[in-house]
Amino acid sequence: MRKEKVKVIIWGLGAMGKGMAEMLMKKKGVEIVGACDVDPNLVNKSLYDLVGFDRGNCKDVVVKDKVEEVITEKGADVVLIATDSFVKGAFDKIVYCLKKGINVITTAEEMAYPQAQEPELAKEIDRIAKENGVTVLGTGINPGLIMDLFVVTLTGACIDVDYIKAERINDLSPFGPAVMSEQGVGISVDEFNGRVADGTLAGHVGFPESINMIADALGWKLSSEIVQSKEPIVSNVYRKAPHAEVEPGKVAGCKMLGHGYVDGELKIEMVHPQQVEPHLEGVETGDYITIKGTPNINMQIKPEIPGGIGTIAMCVNMIPHVINAKPGLKTMIDLPVPRAILGDMRDLIEE
Amino acid sequence: MRKEKVKVIIWGLGAMGKGMAEMLMKKKGVEIVGACDVDPNLVNKSLYDLVGFDRGNCKDVVVKDKVEEVITEKGADVVLIATDSFVKGAFDKIVYCLKKGINVITTAEEMAYPQAQEPELAKEIDRIAKENGVTVLGTGINPGLIMDLFVVTLTGACIDVDYIKAERINDLSPFGPAVMSEQGVGISVDEFNGRVADGTLAGHVGFPESINMIADALGWKLSSEIVQSKEPIVSNVYRKAPHAEVEPGKVAGCKMLGHGYVDGELKIEMVHPQQVEPHLEGVETGDYITIKGTPNINMQIKPEIPGGIGTIAMCVNMIPHVINAKPGLKTMIDLPVPRAILGDMRDLIEE
Repeated sequence: MRKEKVKVIIWGLGAMGKGMAEMLMKKKGVEIVGACDVDPNLVNKSLYDLVGFDRGNCKDVVVKDKVEEVITEKGADVVLIATDSFVKGAFDKIVYCLKKGINVITTAEEMAYPQAQEPELAKEIDRIAKENGVTVLGTGINPGLIMDLFVVTLTGACIDVDYIKAERINDLSPFGPAVMSEQGVGISVDEFNGRVADGTLAGHVGFPESINMIADALGWKLSSEIVQSKEPIVSNVYRKAPHAEVEPGKVAGCKMLGHGYVDGELKIEMVHPQQVEPHLEGVETGDYITIKGTPNINMQIKPEIPGGIGTIAMCVNMIPHVINAKPGLKTMIDLPVPRAILGDMRDLIEE
Repeated sequence: MRKEKVKVIIWGLGAMGKGMAEMLMKKKGVEIVGACDVDPNLVNKSLYDLVGFDRGNCKDVVVKDKVEEVITEKGADVVLIATDSFVKGAFDKIVYCLKKGINVITTAEEMAYPQAQEPELAKEIDRIAKENGVTVLGTGINPGLIMDLFVVTLTGACIDVDYIKAERINDLSPFGPAVMSEQGVGISVDEFNGRVADGTLAGHVGFPESINMIADALGWKLSSEIVQSKEPIVSNVYRKAPHAEVEPGKVAGCKMLGHGYVDGELKIEMVHPQQVEPHLEGVETGDYITIKGTPNINMQIKPEIPGGIGTIAMCVNMIPHVINAKPGLKTMIDLPVPRAILGDMRDLIEE
């Protein structure tokens, strides 16, 4: 086992970044050596204080807004970047870390399979990673596990596959105001439809990534662009969550649909209604995968694996695999399966 | 893409070997270049005739009993060995293939994680594989996926894990006379208990492998030997399957239990009742995984993924990963996830 602890830097201290910090503080054989965020409310504060974790004998980590003070040449084994959803937004940050000779794991949803929508940037990231002998991975609960890696893994038990459906019916209630706004929670149906029309309602980011990941893993050639749609989930009752309030007749969330076709035939179907307090209208949350093939497979996880915890865990749990991987851009289908790290993280690092 | 098709030899033409042959015959970019079995009913017959598959323009494959006529120096990319359950039984066959410079995938249940019960032989296999620049993998539906790889993958979404339970309630009806005998189907309770006592009732082979695979993946140090037990499933009704008949009061199958402890605490629990015609007494078959941790996870697959098809698919679907892997003994937690191969297998081989 190597003597030095695994060194991690966290870039972006929203709910995900802070959650990863707390998770890492509780793990053995790993230490946080830096943290950066541009939020003036966080800068120059102790990361331990922000997380509310007793640092004991650990060296303090002070949040900086100047990246160059935190991310230095081979100053860590990995940087966790939790700042963006889109490849374009995350690109410069990723490249900055790679050029410092540090591996990257990012929550950016499009980075789970950047080949899907940003093939040129994906190639560029792969090239720069290889040039610097380091690895990049985008992951999270979804994309990253529920609607893609799990699906692929289940097909491993199949002689043949004709059709795949992945459904994730989840509860948005624990999330903050940013997510409420992205999903249109609390607004009118007219406003929802207007925002869908002008492209300002994000909904779930990840269907093209998940669908292309599955298709490429299985060897299906998608025949045209992924077809996506967003529908308002109109509430019949009053709903209240910590960061949202929904009057009857208003929008409780966004139902996203995604369809992948092979030779004009629907092969991959994704259904992902996200809303606050779904139980108030008798909706049971869960993750569901249906495979039609030889054999048929029907999987369910009830309730759904929670998105926040799941994303935090996936990013941290993939650290050893990313350190061990060959240089370049990797996706979840290239690496060994994620796993909870209950022992010393150094035991998992190959010499 | 490489020009040459992926070349496969099948050693052992029971239900699994024949199933793999049929699956391979239907896939693109792969060819069967040899088959061996000692059964005089199979020797010198055409593999295509045995499988009942029209060989079209493919070169015929004649079953041989002399291994040395089939498995020659680098004569294939991989040998699928479907002859044994135990490492000791499969060892010489595996080593024979490795020394010919050919990768091996085997259905031998103990080979899914030979570190568990045969650590010395596992080291020897690893050494010989590396010496010859090839890779060995043991896989199948269980061990190999349901009660181990899936469990590990689900923990990837966990910050912490306290306890794991894996249940597989399956139907043995489609299986042949060998499985009926191994599981004690149709015999009296006294005979069942006698065979458990004298060690001649196999039951499910794989709990120590699955439990150790999970524990090692997560970093749990098991505190003592895996505790296993076998109980007769006594039928209250008359049950009939193609290769078994069970009178009321007789044994319809074997319920295996397996327990893994960490510091004296039960951490991994396995429950695996296997029987013919479970529906006759209202038993619903399925695969179930329960994780207590952060978060809790409850997964179910109903009905269970069928064992025969699943094992055939897993072995064939792992061929590209095994060819691409670094030399040595690998297990399912070392390699990328299995996936159905719907395109040309050569597309999956790294140059």
